[in-house]
Amino acid sequence: MFDTIRWSEEGVVMIDQRKLPREEVYVTCRNYREVADAIRSMVIRGAPAIGVAAAMGVALGMLEADSADPDAAFEEVVRTLAGTRPTAVNLFWALERMRRAYEQVRGQPLAAIRRRLVEEACRIREEDIAVNQAIGRHGAPLVPDGKIVLTHCNAGALATAGYGTALGVIRAAIAAGKRIEVYACETRPFLQGARLTAWELLHDRIPTTLITDNMAGHFLKSGRIGCVVVGADRIAANGDVANKIGTYSLAVLAHENRVPFYVAAPVSTLDLSLASGEQIPIEQRPAEEVTHVFGVRVAPEGVRVENPAFDVTPNRYVTAIITERGVARPPYAESLRGLAQDDNLARSR
Amino acid sequence: MFDTIRWSEEGVVMIDQRKLPREEVYVTCRNYREVADAIRSMVIRGAPAIGVAAAMGVALGMLEADSADPDAAFEEVVRTLAGTRPTAVNLFWALERMRRAYEQVRGQPLAAIRRRLVEEACRIREEDIAVNQAIGRHGAPLVPDGKIVLTHCNAGALATAGYGTALGVIRAAIAAGKRIEVYACETRPFLQGARLTAWELLHDRIPTTLITDNMAGHFLKSGRIGCVVVGADRIAANGDVANKIGTYSLAVLAHENRVPFYVAAPVSTLDLSLASGEQIPIEQRPAEEVTHVFGVRVAPEGVRVENPAFDVTPNRYVTAIITERGVARPPYAESLRGLAQDDNLARSR
Repeated sequence: MFDTIRWSEEGVVMIDQRKLPREEVYVTCRNYREVADAIRSMVIRGAPAIGVAAAMGVALGMLEADSADPDAAFEEVVRTLAGTRPTAVNLFWALERMRRAYEQVRGQPLAAIRRRLVEEACRIREEDIAVNQAIGRHGAPLVPDGKIVLTHCNAGALATAGYGTALGVIRAAIAAGKRIEVYACETRPFLQGARLTAWELLHDRIPTTLITDNMAGHFLKSGRIGCVVVGADRIAANGDVANKIGTYSLAVLAHENRVPFYVAAPVSTLDLSLASGEQIPIEQRPAEEVTHVFGVRVAPEGVRVENPAFDVTPNRYVTAIITERGVARPPYAESLRGLAQDDNLARSR
Repeated sequence: MFDTIRWSEEGVVMIDQRKLPREEVYVTCRNYREVADAIRSMVIRGAPAIGVAAAMGVALGMLEADSADPDAAFEEVVRTLAGTRPTAVNLFWALERMRRAYEQVRGQPLAAIRRRLVEEACRIREEDIAVNQAIGRHGAPLVPDGKIVLTHCNAGALATAGYGTALGVIRAAIAAGKRIEVYACETRPFLQGARLTAWELLHDRIPTTLITDNMAGHFLKSGRIGCVVVGADRIAANGDVANKIGTYSLAVLAHENRVPFYVAAPVSTLDLSLASGEQIPIEQRPAEEVTHVFGVRVAPEGVRVENPAFDVTPNRYVTAIITERGVARPPYAESLRGLAQDDNLARSR
């Protein structure tokens, strides 16, 4: 097995997701700026994994901080990490959780602050694995037996601390005895499907077929796909879902062909402060991701490029949202608020 | 300027479309087997261009034929060329036209047969350019001014003897003074959009933006796309359209967002012998096209792959079909029959 991300004496260790599946190498981030760079350059990616990385980045940042002004150091570390990627709300959720932990020990000796923050970051990692297993338990009954599950990008062990959200649902369905196979969209431009999902599912001996993104409609029309399951980077209060570019197209094509379209994500992906998905900031990534593949130029020089990393799927195309606390169904304004209230209750205990 | 394909003393000269845009090199096919290989390996591709190549392949084949049994030689050449690629009907249309030319001179001295077949192949090439210009004239009025035109794959000068079908409509709209720009889907796995459409439009200084295939839905939803224009490989009697994989998805996404979806193709792309698109044979291409990009592996070894080269767009998603004889609208069973009847009239004159 592999670890997507873990805490070590030397720093935060991550599998380098830019190099998979050609090379399985690990990167050790020895300070918070290296963690920020790793998030920005997609050494690590996937909304929940970014959250864990940010939390560990904060802990690492405070290990470096001098004792003169811990508050200022904390703010600088948080600001740097918050500036890495704009769309996945789990990043901001994790930073907020680290802030609450910091506030609990604020004013105490730096050693106590450090201990508390390392503990909290490692707890976020551990909780994420348990959360994904719960998502899998809730999602597995929704997966039709004997058919293909279509997924996009990588919402797997590599996108989380382990087990995965969308791929967690698939793993749980298989563990429950369902005979399913997976069609993985390659997910241009960064090829998370071809490079990461295919790699991680082959690792687990789950039958997997790779297709290019533009084939998905053809197979959704064929009647062979039982459901689509994807992850999410941010979910607005009305159930609109920001996820990897291409998700919106899959959702429309699934809807047109009466194939259920499921989003699997932890409650930390909900952003109830946004009324709709139109308010979710969409990151633009560098043109080189489109014009080059593994450093090889595939387009003429001088061509203009658009590279939005995410799109927004309106709630009407989403059959259900699978979280660790249960399955939300339309109308999402109500069902998601219900799940989030559990959160407020848990927090106030 | 470049020639996609031309007849020469040495053989059939083609620009090598596998190597664009990195290298602009020409291949000379010196016998019909080399033409067949060039079609199969996609040195040349695009339904009308494949038709021209097949016609020239027949002429080349008869230049090699010995005088003992020209009929047998002709059949062998046609059989070989017909076996190269199954979906684009223009291939079979061109072979049929060459057969009619052969029948006119059958029994005459081989020199006369050869002269007639070379003449016919070169005429098919010349006619194709004029046909595309006529498609452009009919299509230009349909293109909304001041907006983006989205296209898929390459239905341009490189897919034809020159000018292009879908890109011919774009060229004609620009020549008519419309201020439009083009969004080109990169078109995995063979990247005809990134490699060929972007290259050819930049060549003509037409403003072009490259996007990955999975971004098309996002931009169709944005309201910035005025229309979609694509080519076709085969159109059934009911107006169902086989075209490059991904076309069906674009058509559904255009329909969902109320963006007109136009197919531009010569009458030679019609196959009225097929009642619906379900009967169109869909070519499966090698897995390596998906797992490798310019020879660089992008997916783990051992992963299964599907690689259908085409999909079928049901007629209900097609706003109009633009041909050299005019614009066909639904119901297509009637409008396409009308266009084809012109063909029968022309043929009987």
